[in-house]
Amino acid sequence: MNILITGATGFIGKHLIKHLSPKHTLSILIRRNSDCSSLPPVSSVFTFQDNIEELADFLQRNQIDGIIHLASLYVAEHKSEQIKEMILSNIYLGTALLEACKKAQTKWFLNTGTIWQNYNASDYSDMYNPVNLYAASKQAFLTMAKYYTETTSLRFCTLKLCDTYGPNDTRRKIFSLFEEIARTGETLAMSPGEQKLDIIHIDDAVTGFESVIERLNDDSISLHPEYVLSSGKQIPLRELAAMYEEKHHVKLNIAWGGRPYRQREVMVPYKGKIPENWKPKIEY
Amino acid sequence: MNILITGATGFIGKHLIKHLSPKHTLSILIRRNSDCSSLPPVSSVFTFQDNIEELADFLQRNQIDGIIHLASLYVAEHKSEQIKEMILSNIYLGTALLEACKKAQTKWFLNTGTIWQNYNASDYSDMYNPVNLYAASKQAFLTMAKYYTETTSLRFCTLKLCDTYGPNDTRRKIFSLFEEIARTGETLAMSPGEQKLDIIHIDDAVTGFESVIERLNDDSISLHPEYVLSSGKQIPLRELAAMYEEKHHVKLNIAWGGRPYRQREVMVPYKGKIPENWKPKIEY
Repeated sequence: MNILITGATGFIGKHLIKHLSPKHTLSILIRRNSDCSSLPPVSSVFTFQDNIEELADFLQRNQIDGIIHLASLYVAEHKSEQIKEMILSNIYLGTALLEACKKAQTKWFLNTGTIWQNYNASDYSDMYNPVNLYAASKQAFLTMAKYYTETTSLRFCTLKLCDTYGPNDTRRKIFSLFEEIARTGETLAMSPGEQKLDIIHIDDAVTGFESVIERLNDDSISLHPEYVLSSGKQIPLRELAAMYEEKHHVKLNIAWGGRPYRQREVMVPYKGKIPENWKPKIEY
Repeated sequence: MNILITGATGFIGKHLIKHLSPKHTLSILIRRNSDCSSLPPVSSVFTFQDNIEELADFLQRNQIDGIIHLASLYVAEHKSEQIKEMILSNIYLGTALLEACKKAQTKWFLNTGTIWQNYNASDYSDMYNPVNLYAASKQAFLTMAKYYTETTSLRFCTLKLCDTYGPNDTRRKIFSLFEEIARTGETLAMSPGEQKLDIIHIDDAVTGFESVIERLNDDSISLHPEYVLSSGKQIPLRELAAMYEEKHHVKLNIAWGGRPYRQREVMVPYKGKIPENWKPKIEY
């Protein structure tokens, strides 16, 4: 397949490109302000500068079968001045891509979402309630996407992610915190730690993406509008810390309860449908 | 009440301000690129330049009770290059207002929607299906708003409009077309004309807004999340043309069927709940 990937310089993007490169012809879309210091080796790079016609031409010229849209601006607790950029990154860019797909008659579009779009939702219900404004912006993009799925034959699917981990993760996530305090020995004040986490290894996430794009590209297969890449397990944060200590033979100085839970802390992650023919293989 | 109004220079904004001015203290929000040649006389004008903190300060300083958010970029059939501006006008501006409301603890927010958010939806179902990308962007704003209604005590309500008409309407709507061809005598190619319209006079629309802001400001009253300002009547376009001819003693040269229906022509307008204690008084 000829695939265009956005968000190629991010943690998931890098791993996904490495995995898909031997099998498919990959192009990437970057923005003017993207960090281009470590672009992966791909067949072509398109710099998006708000010209949607140009993007549609690129899709046609490169006979792009589908788009994997990973690019997003993630902010756990936003500041006012980040809202505009969040809307441009998480709603506008995706809409521009869909508009280009419509013009170029691109076959499929794989969108990336988050289980944070379903705060306190019962399992498999898909009820929308955003944990934060970031999750709201991801859902708002789905609202825009409905116009395109209603007016074109585009095969569209959203893959919602839980927490991912793995090598070369530069995001400030839980394991990078653990690593830091294990190294420095400093004491970290954390919430009471009863919240459960659903974490998957990046190698499993990558095969999840692969499984869904194969379904998207095969017209004869019907698709769920969304899937969740879930480990199937929910581990309390405290327990995860203990597992980390055992695995790495270190001691984590955590003051449990040293700070309160976040305003809308996710105590139990949302459970949704996982892709058919996919199963995570790596246990933490 | 102290009310902030956006979209003050539009057709509805002008009429609404004229009606509310004697009873309330009105402020308006304009953007740098607003047409300021005909600003109505109001107590204060705030120019929004992406500084949300400044906007929150303004709300607090002027003790704003609520916001009537009319501003929007209306495009029936969009061009690619209009998408960014549509998203900034119809999603970002409203989100910035809600963020400022959260900071200033503003009491209520009246949002303006369109029955085009409910293409082919059965009566009162509120099922989302956008007629066009404009309607999708109005719905995407609701998706963003959910974050604020879930995390604050803001009283939020959407008033969905059908077609409005009345004096000094500079929008290119059906009656301005009729007026033009009545004057010039030219023949206008139109669709077969079987689509039904729900039209209300601007004076009725204005009392509809008034009725809802009174409910919003009264904590003891429970609110529907949305209302539709509907005439209660659905008139086929052909019939409306005949009524226009009779009312104005003119002849309209319309070639019915001279062009096809639009891709997603609304044949029967969506019927939703009208505000309690409101009824349109002016029949076409």
